[in-house]
Amino acid sequence: MTGNNQHDYSRLCIHTITTRPWAFEKAAVSFAKAGVRGISVWRDALQGREIAEVRRLLESLQLDIVSLCRGGFFPSTDPKRRSAAIDDNLKAIDEAASLGAPLVVLVCGSAPDQSLAESRKQIKDGIAACLGHAKSAKVRLAIEPLHPMYAAERSAINTLEQANDMAESLNSPWVGIALDVYHVWWDPDLEKEIMRCGRSGNLAAFHICDWKSPMLDMLNDRGLMGEGCINIRQISNWVDNAGFSGFREVEIFSTSYWQQDQEKFLEKIKLAYLEHI
Amino acid sequence: MTGNNQHDYSRLCIHTITTRPWAFEKAAVSFAKAGVRGISVWRDALQGREIAEVRRLLESLQLDIVSLCRGGFFPSTDPKRRSAAIDDNLKAIDEAASLGAPLVVLVCGSAPDQSLAESRKQIKDGIAACLGHAKSAKVRLAIEPLHPMYAAERSAINTLEQANDMAESLNSPWVGIALDVYHVWWDPDLEKEIMRCGRSGNLAAFHICDWKSPMLDMLNDRGLMGEGCINIRQISNWVDNAGFSGFREVEIFSTSYWQQDQEKFLEKIKLAYLEHI
Repeated sequence: MTGNNQHDYSRLCIHTITTRPWAFEKAAVSFAKAGVRGISVWRDALQGREIAEVRRLLESLQLDIVSLCRGGFFPSTDPKRRSAAIDDNLKAIDEAASLGAPLVVLVCGSAPDQSLAESRKQIKDGIAACLGHAKSAKVRLAIEPLHPMYAAERSAINTLEQANDMAESLNSPWVGIALDVYHVWWDPDLEKEIMRCGRSGNLAAFHICDWKSPMLDMLNDRGLMGEGCINIRQISNWVDNAGFSGFREVEIFSTSYWQQDQEKFLEKIKLAYLEHI
Repeated sequence: MTGNNQHDYSRLCIHTITTRPWAFEKAAVSFAKAGVRGISVWRDALQGREIAEVRRLLESLQLDIVSLCRGGFFPSTDPKRRSAAIDDNLKAIDEAASLGAPLVVLVCGSAPDQSLAESRKQIKDGIAACLGHAKSAKVRLAIEPLHPMYAAERSAINTLEQANDMAESLNSPWVGIALDVYHVWWDPDLEKEIMRCGRSGNLAAFHICDWKSPMLDMLNDRGLMGEGCINIRQISNWVDNAGFSGFREVEIFSTSYWQQDQEKFLEKIKLAYLEHI
């Protein structure tokens, strides 16, 4: 169905953070050489570099620039910090535009010293405040629902249903949703909400990795596809059935993999992609 | 509203695991001396003891025996293990009956090598297989929805909505729900589902603790009420408004607190209970 058994990497994208030990240029060249077709760029990879040069490198390597990661972190009890967060998101939009990335992924944020409802309101206000700039820059903002274990600090948007509600209420072509299997695999409403997301035209990005069992760390022990308990192929098929034809982006935070040989890790990613998507 | 500012501990219950370093007898005597009115007994506390003697001790201390923790863990790809799990739950029901505990809390289980849907089916079948015995023993089984971060191994029931669905479909007075703020605080549907749980007569137990931010460990870094980001009073009020008048059970797994003086910890629990419920 997906043609991956034909060694088709045309929809394979890798996030720069996945091969974190590699300098940005090394990662880009290695991805291209391996036949990977897309790259999502984390902002730390841009540090100390001219964005125009980064863009030229990626274009010369014929890598599609899928997204810039990441903006967000809107909520705070301190109005000054909320304002600073909006400024930072405007900057991220500018960076994405300079880079030629059509999308900025939003880790929306959450403030543990206020209610989730208040954080959600501030997220909505924060995104709304960036929409004009997103439109002029032609950069879309993608709300990423994060696993409920991150509700205290990283995101008050914890299910695809909540992300759908927010994207639909913002009602802008410059708002979409980034879906990551790691965050949503447990959700009994997942298929239904993926279909809804597709119907509303909000399905903007699809991230893959796996949920290991046991998992040693809440942040940096993500698994390679096939190493855990997520039925990634099923979710990927739902996403395709919902009308998505974009990249499958491999985003793996893993202290363990970061300690290993990144060339070999890249080969493992390619094999796992063929086998499990 | 709750009268706790009157130093009212009439609804305060503590789980034996909360003061894990204490031998069972020491915990029971200390709880009673501190004015705590209820105790939930973990099965490890019964190891090597005559249940009838344990019961006599608790009755002599005038401690209400709120629940036995815990049964469950029904799913497995191996039919023999599923059958053994049912046997163990029947045994837990017998233990609860001998102890005089009206309730067995179920951590329902999940098998990472099969789908959550299959695990849920096995949970339902497992509980159903125990219902006749629960009825004759007059012991109720309480489905505890567990945080989605435990979906791989500990429970495929991860929201109160799912627990409500399952309890309602089992449709027995011997099935109820144990609600723990730690597992459900992030859920945008929480108030609605608590009200539903009350209306259906399924609200059988209420556990309290807090979600720390940051949290160092997925299992054993629970906070004392007030140390984290859960609005426990709000949830407790919802639970009361849904018709619940039972104990508020302090269930804290904390490597940090277990290393401290348990007498002082017990005093902190009492203060936190008054301040935050």
